[in-house]
Amino acid sequence: MKPLAPGDTIGILGGGQLGRMLSIAAAQLGFDVAIFTDEPDSPAARVSARTTIGNYLDHAALADFARRVDVVTTEFENVPAETAQALIDAGARVAPNPHALAVAQDRFDEKSYFASAGIATPPFRAIASQADLDAAIAEIGAPAILKTRRLGYDGRGQIRIKTEADANGAYEKLGAPGILEGFCAFEREVSIIAARGWDGAIAFYDLNENEHAGGILSRTTLPARVSAEVESHAQDAARRVLEAFDYVGVLTIEFFVMADGSLIANEMAPRVHNSGHWTIEGALTSQFGQHIRAVAGWPLGPTTRVAAIEMLNLIGDEANDWPALAADPDARVHLYGKRSARSGRKMGHVTKLR
Amino acid sequence: MKPLAPGDTIGILGGGQLGRMLSIAAAQLGFDVAIFTDEPDSPAARVSARTTIGNYLDHAALADFARRVDVVTTEFENVPAETAQALIDAGARVAPNPHALAVAQDRFDEKSYFASAGIATPPFRAIASQADLDAAIAEIGAPAILKTRRLGYDGRGQIRIKTEADANGAYEKLGAPGILEGFCAFEREVSIIAARGWDGAIAFYDLNENEHAGGILSRTTLPARVSAEVESHAQDAARRVLEAFDYVGVLTIEFFVMADGSLIANEMAPRVHNSGHWTIEGALTSQFGQHIRAVAGWPLGPTTRVAAIEMLNLIGDEANDWPALAADPDARVHLYGKRSARSGRKMGHVTKLR
Repeated sequence: MKPLAPGDTIGILGGGQLGRMLSIAAAQLGFDVAIFTDEPDSPAARVSARTTIGNYLDHAALADFARRVDVVTTEFENVPAETAQALIDAGARVAPNPHALAVAQDRFDEKSYFASAGIATPPFRAIASQADLDAAIAEIGAPAILKTRRLGYDGRGQIRIKTEADANGAYEKLGAPGILEGFCAFEREVSIIAARGWDGAIAFYDLNENEHAGGILSRTTLPARVSAEVESHAQDAARRVLEAFDYVGVLTIEFFVMADGSLIANEMAPRVHNSGHWTIEGALTSQFGQHIRAVAGWPLGPTTRVAAIEMLNLIGDEANDWPALAADPDARVHLYGKRSARSGRKMGHVTKLR
Repeated sequence: MKPLAPGDTIGILGGGQLGRMLSIAAAQLGFDVAIFTDEPDSPAARVSARTTIGNYLDHAALADFARRVDVVTTEFENVPAETAQALIDAGARVAPNPHALAVAQDRFDEKSYFASAGIATPPFRAIASQADLDAAIAEIGAPAILKTRRLGYDGRGQIRIKTEADANGAYEKLGAPGILEGFCAFEREVSIIAARGWDGAIAFYDLNENEHAGGILSRTTLPARVSAEVESHAQDAARRVLEAFDYVGVLTIEFFVMADGSLIANEMAPRVHNSGHWTIEGALTSQFGQHIRAVAGWPLGPTTRVAAIEMLNLIGDEANDWPALAADPDARVHLYGKRSARSGRKMGHVTKLR
């Protein structure tokens, strides 16, 4: 494709903090940004002069948006397939492509996709009834985790099945089509952030080691405590996914690292990712700048990491510690401008370079 | 003062690239931004959801702006005194204070101020007539430079007096009250970027070594080729100016370095400065983040430089080289989103860390 020129417009679906940081990265490269979101007063809209507040299924609004931008990308994976199609029908170039978004939206499709690409996953079964769940538990055993197939994130829509008895009535409690995943006794969690350009070039960031609390990422550190071989396996998996989807942009895969060093894919995010926020200060090209470069048809930038990293999420009222963080010379503070610090809400993050 | 909280609004007078980079820095710290500019479709307005396009002397518009922001700062020094006063009258807190802006707007007042603070300047005389000019040339001699007192920047409003004969008719050609400055046979040009917080704390960045072409900054490198003693003298001068003005925010002073290592102050800018753009990637706190911290009443951040630096301005159609710059892994590209690359216009910059 002909690369976008400075002054061209990047359209972003979604108004959250990822859209905010993508918008800033786009502005630094001289692009204009237009946001499409169903949320009034969103974090991303506040750093862009052009925001459409509309329903993701409003075809007229989407067609209008498509006409006013030079490429459309997204900051969240749960973009309805209908939305992406309406944009494409209106003539928009959409990156990453809707197929990758659709697969990532459904935990069963995603894990099936991993399996078909030769990427190890936990044992998993689709669950459409209590009978399915009972049969799956009989096969996979407990402990296991029952999750909704769609629209879960940050630990929402999940039920832990510690013993077989916990499965009783669990499907009704879940209230939606699900997936049962066998429990992995992992040593640690890592993620890889990878990017692919329109020209097929691929770049990887160093592996992130992640700690979660209450199902939400709380801390990312680099270098991850894994061997070069493990890192190479993660890169192989990411490369296979990027190429199979003919993917353009940044994509993230989360893995469990087992005691024997093997990797088990947990999930993928067809977007920039919380575990990559350290790249703003800690890499020669941030994941946000990299994603903008990719979707704009620019060459990918260098991903070299410049220091050891600790990234801490500020969840809910942890962001109220901003006076102490502002005074800490080691803390590179990022706040997302969210109006209320609801419990479990990602309000900001802090990166420390050592 | 009580520090501004995340979600509070920083008002910025001016819509240029400095306002754009200040807006981005404010957003990263969780602040909202509102721009006041007389320019439609300005670089800063495109990264903010809230822009007032108005005349700087429209008191009603200024009063409305003052009510909707928590502090007002500026990205250019030629803010009319009437504008600052109207904002203060409407209850706004303005930083830096209008006195510093007023002095920096007038080259004669500025140099008189330096002299009164014990900071060396070139010989200078106020010029209000051809007779003044003739007398000044007789005293100071040629070569010298005749400049307008007000509203000059990037080499505009300047006439070089190479020999005494060049003075003939030069005042009429200048067409405005002027200042004659004796020529300094300097070895190099440097600038210091300093910041002062509401609490009186002061921080300095490492000295910038600057090269100009056609009166416009073309290249900044660090470390500057000066002794620690010279750097210390520059800091002393900046400290005196910051304290004398009870200044809050980032301030820049440009100096000539003479063969004997002495410093001669050329001019000051009561704002972030082109020679400090390298701080975005090259210092632990960027000059933009530092200015936002200062005017928001936050503690100043660390100014440590992390590498040797080369910053290159992209002037006029140099910005058309963006495809090559985008492909250069050593170039951290910044483009300002200006719609037309007029000759002499600052379109972007590139920072290289070594």
